Amino acid sequence: MPRYKLTLEYEGTHYAGWQTQPTDPTIQDALEKALAQILRKPIQVVGSGRTDSGVHAEGQVVHFDFDGELDKKSLLKSLWGVLPKDIAAWDLEKVDEHFHARFDGIARQYRYQIVTRPSPLRRRWAWERYFELDPGRMRECAEMIKGTHDFESFCKHNPDVNHTNCEVSLSEIVSTGDGMLIYRIKANRFLHHMVRSLTGTMVDVGLGKRSVDSFKSLVFKPDRKSVGPTAPAKGLILEKVFYKK
Amino acid sequence: MPRYKLTLEYEGTHYAGWQTQPTDPTIQDALEKALAQILRKPIQVVGSGRTDSGVHAEGQVVHFDFDGELDKKSLLKSLWGVLPKDIAAWDLEKVDEHFHARFDGIARQYRYQIVTRPSPLRRRWAWERYFELDPGRMRECAEMIKGTHDFESFCKHNPDVNHTNCEVSLSEIVSTGDGMLIYRIKANRFLHHMVRSLTGTMVDVGLGKRSVDSFKSLVFKPDRKSVGPTAPAKGLILEKVFYKK
Repeated sequence: MPRYKLTLEYEGTHYAGWQTQPTDPTIQDALEKALAQILRKPIQVVGSGRTDSGVHAEGQVVHFDFDGELDKKSLLKSLWGVLPKDIAAWDLEKVDEHFHARFDGIARQYRYQIVTRPSPLRRRWAWERYFELDPGRMRECAEMIKGTHDFESFCKHNPDVNHTNCEVSLSEIVSTGDGMLIYRIKANRFLHHMVRSLTGTMVDVGLGKRSVDSFKSLVFKPDRKSVGPTAPAKGLILEKVFYKK
Repeated sequence: MPRYKLTLEYEGTHYAGWQTQPTDPTIQDALEKALAQILRKPIQVVGSGRTDSGVHAEGQVVHFDFDGELDKKSLLKSLWGVLPKDIAAWDLEKVDEHFHARFDGIARQYRYQIVTRPSPLRRRWAWERYFELDPGRMRECAEMIKGTHDFESFCKHNPDVNHTNCEVSLSEIVSTGDGMLIYRIKANRFLHHMVRSLTGTMVDVGLGKRSVDSFKSLVFKPDRKSVGPTAPAKGLILEKVFYKK
């Protein structure tokens, strides 16, 4: 049966995350419901990975099977009409029937947004930290985690995960110069709460509440008890999922 | 009496524009009310210029007089606590008592945002035009209006204005590459609806509904009747007001 790859942008504020749950509304539910309504049969989608409650996405990827030819423009338009306004599909591609949105993903990229001054136009999708943050100190931390490291310090304990090593190919602090600080990270895999935990701990370093060396210890001698706060979900955006071409 | 210059960011969605009106809520009302509450006396503010209903600002400037010394950090913090969450002050400066937020402004800069794909994270502050827009054609139009021109074609008729010439020092189309198109313009003055009218007409050119030459005619042989649509308020942001240093 033909397989399709769909790319989504969503605001996670009003959802209990990506994945279907027994009670609360999720992005996956809304998408499957919209596809079923448009294609007139039940459709199951497989996402590239979960996003937590309140987390946003610019480039979440899913695949689904449908026994028929789908036209990109008309399906995207129909979805825009049917989906709630905080979810939108913006790309559709017919893919090999063995393509898998989750298992074929070779890397994911996230952005964490922090506003350092009151900002009504950006606060919905940013952590509001109206303090003097030292981007230089945060940059030292961001640099340090490039490469392969054990990120046990920066994740929720999960007995189903058999190791906590991740290969980080991009890790940067970007200061936009107008009151926004962005932490961007790309890695082959992410552990639960990893970006938010890294960001929260780096912000402590930026505030001077913690030394760059103490951050370094967490990277090189994992210790979950000494980590900083987990930054709130609302500042986190899944930017992109990468696949082999 | 000491004079202060305050810089504001706001989301205009829920306001009838900047300027106080008999009935509907405005940004100016909200700000004066908040300042009066904090400083315990009536405060009148003078803005750099009006923004229309639904238009946003990142750098609106106002001045006001207050008989006392104000501390930047503590006033900004108090305002953040008292103002509605869609309005925020992010800079305060004590200025010369002759400084005037409106008359001393030598230029203003606006940005108009258009999203060309469904975008839940950006649609609140952007015109949603999910069509193929040709940025090259729009860029030709943007280039053309640099310098001093008569913008009569691109404004609402106003008998109180004695001429419609504006000196444009920046006019550019920026394509972000991820579904957003920005039109940025800086000029010594702006006529009513000017940026929205320029944008609406340029979008017609970008869609191929109008030729670059017909845009050129509007610039060099003003004719209000042949102009394109006025782009909606929600995509317009006052970025910055410039003063002599």
